Amino acid sequence: MTTTAAGTTAPTGGDERSQASGQASPTHGGHGYAHQKDQHLKRLRRIEGQVRGLQRMVEEDVYCIDILTQVSAGTKALQSFALQLLEEHLRHCVASAAVESAAKEGDEGEDEVDAKVAEATAAIARLLRT
Amino acid sequence: MTTTAAGTTAPTGGDERSQASGQASPTHGGHGYAHQKDQHLKRLRRIEGQVRGLQRMVEEDVYCIDILTQVSAGTKALQSFALQLLEEHLRHCVASAAVESAAKEGDEGEDEVDAKVAEATAAIARLLRT
Amino acid sequence: MTTTAAGTTAPTGGDERSQASGQASPTHGGHGYAHQKDQHLKRLRRIEGQVRGLQRMVEEDVYCIDILTQVSAGTKALQSFALQLLEEHLRHCVASAAVESAAKEGDEGEDEVDAKVAEATAAIARLLRT
Amino acid sequence: MTTTAAGTTAPTGGDERSQASGQASPTHGGHGYAHQKDQHLKRLRRIEGQVRGLQRMVEEDVYCIDILTQVSAGTKALQSFALQLLEEHLRHCVASAAVESAAKEGDEGEDEVDAKVAEATAAIARLLRT
Repeated sequence: MTTTAAGTTAPTGGDERSQASGQASPTHGGHGYAHQKDQHLKRLRRIEGQVRGLQRMVEEDVYCIDILTQVSAGTKALQSFALQLLEEHLRHCVASAAVESAAKEGDEGEDEVDAKVAEATAAIARLLRT
Repeated sequence: MTTTAAGTTAPTGGDERSQASGQASPTHGGHGYAHQKDQHLKRLRRIEGQVRGLQRMVEEDVYCIDILTQVSAGTKALQSFALQLLEEHLRHCVASAAVESAAKEGDEGEDEVDAKVAEATAAIARLLRT
Repeated sequence: MTTTAAGTTAPTGGDERSQASGQASPTHGGHGYAHQKDQHLKRLRRIEGQVRGLQRMVEEDVYCIDILTQVSAGTKALQSFALQLLEEHLRHCVASAAVESAAKEGDEGEDEVDAKVAEATAAIARLLRT
Repeated sequence: MTTTAAGTTAPTGGDERSQASGQASPTHGGHGYAHQKDQHLKRLRRIEGQVRGLQRMVEEDVYCIDILTQVSAGTKALQSFALQLLEEHLRHCVASAAVESAAKEGDEGEDEVDAKVAEATAAIARLLRT
């Protein structure tokens, strides 16, 4: 159980669920990782709130342009989340694959790094093409 | 809350593009609009489900790259929603401003069309820059 | 080829946004259009210069990240150009189709507006998905 | 100007995706890099041609929507170039920083990897936000 987020005041903006569902992030390794996980969940709950806000706007016949502005905010928030995830992935998975590969003989380790990098690049391409 | 869409069968994934540009509601009256509103709400509820799916993935320590793929799907779905909204806006608000402006004397009506078009373009710019 | 813009001083970077949405050409006649055409060509020649700058950077083995920054600037400049073009298109083609349609009997004119709007939306979708 | 690629057969359009993520240069030495450099320059010259094509389209008053389609193609080509550059950067600079850092004592090397990853992520963010 992580107590990191329990005592903190939740960021505002439509994240009603964050108080209701006090889900436990199983501590996966060090304190730092659990902290990041809490941050990711907080971010995603805020995005969920933004999407529910969009539903309210549609139901209340809010002016199209104002809805579009809110959609842009939601897309931006999703992309910021993706960028943070990507940064952690490059730092941990790609970098550690490189270190492991350096300890191996021949091209075997190098191929693994290449595969990890190709995979990350394909993920970035998908983000760019949305 | 919204029971309007309860009895209809929700279109499943992959239909975003065809809806985004394509069929117009033949009737501009109340029924056509209500139909579009239902579609918008259904779409947004699906996106809300995608965002909740992302939370589950984070909680269950799913591999980063798979989460990123799901983020791309969410962003794409939000943009498809935005495109459909934009299309309706251009069809109804911008076009009707043009028709009204043509009935007016001098530059007054034209200024209104220019303002509507500038507003829509700014909204598109925000979508592009996210 | 084009000597029109030869003697004018080209506005330098950073002014794309203000041009993309904002001032309309006051005159819709020939002169206004010629003025816009000059602006478009100036913009495109600047983008051409940016792409040639990228070639120099690659030849001189400039640091990857600096090249990527320059690519972002080029993409942004292309999108600003697209937004300005789109704004003019909405102002002139879509709006005038709406006015013409209002003068026609029945659904014929409306179909034409719908077609123009669907076409513009598809173009925006292509810009978003790049 | 650049005669390096003159004798080779240029790959024609539509191959951007397959190049963006996929084959690695097996040799890290001079030849592999020179080969990539030629490919980059070929790609950029093609993009330069696309931008000049846009100028011709504007001069010949081609229909707006067709110009916008060509702009999308240019933006896509620039982003494919960026992705290939990014992939090489992750493979060489980021991975080698990780290997060097593993050989160092304490946090010094780790900070360097973090800095490289943060720099790459910022570059990706710039690409996404254009």
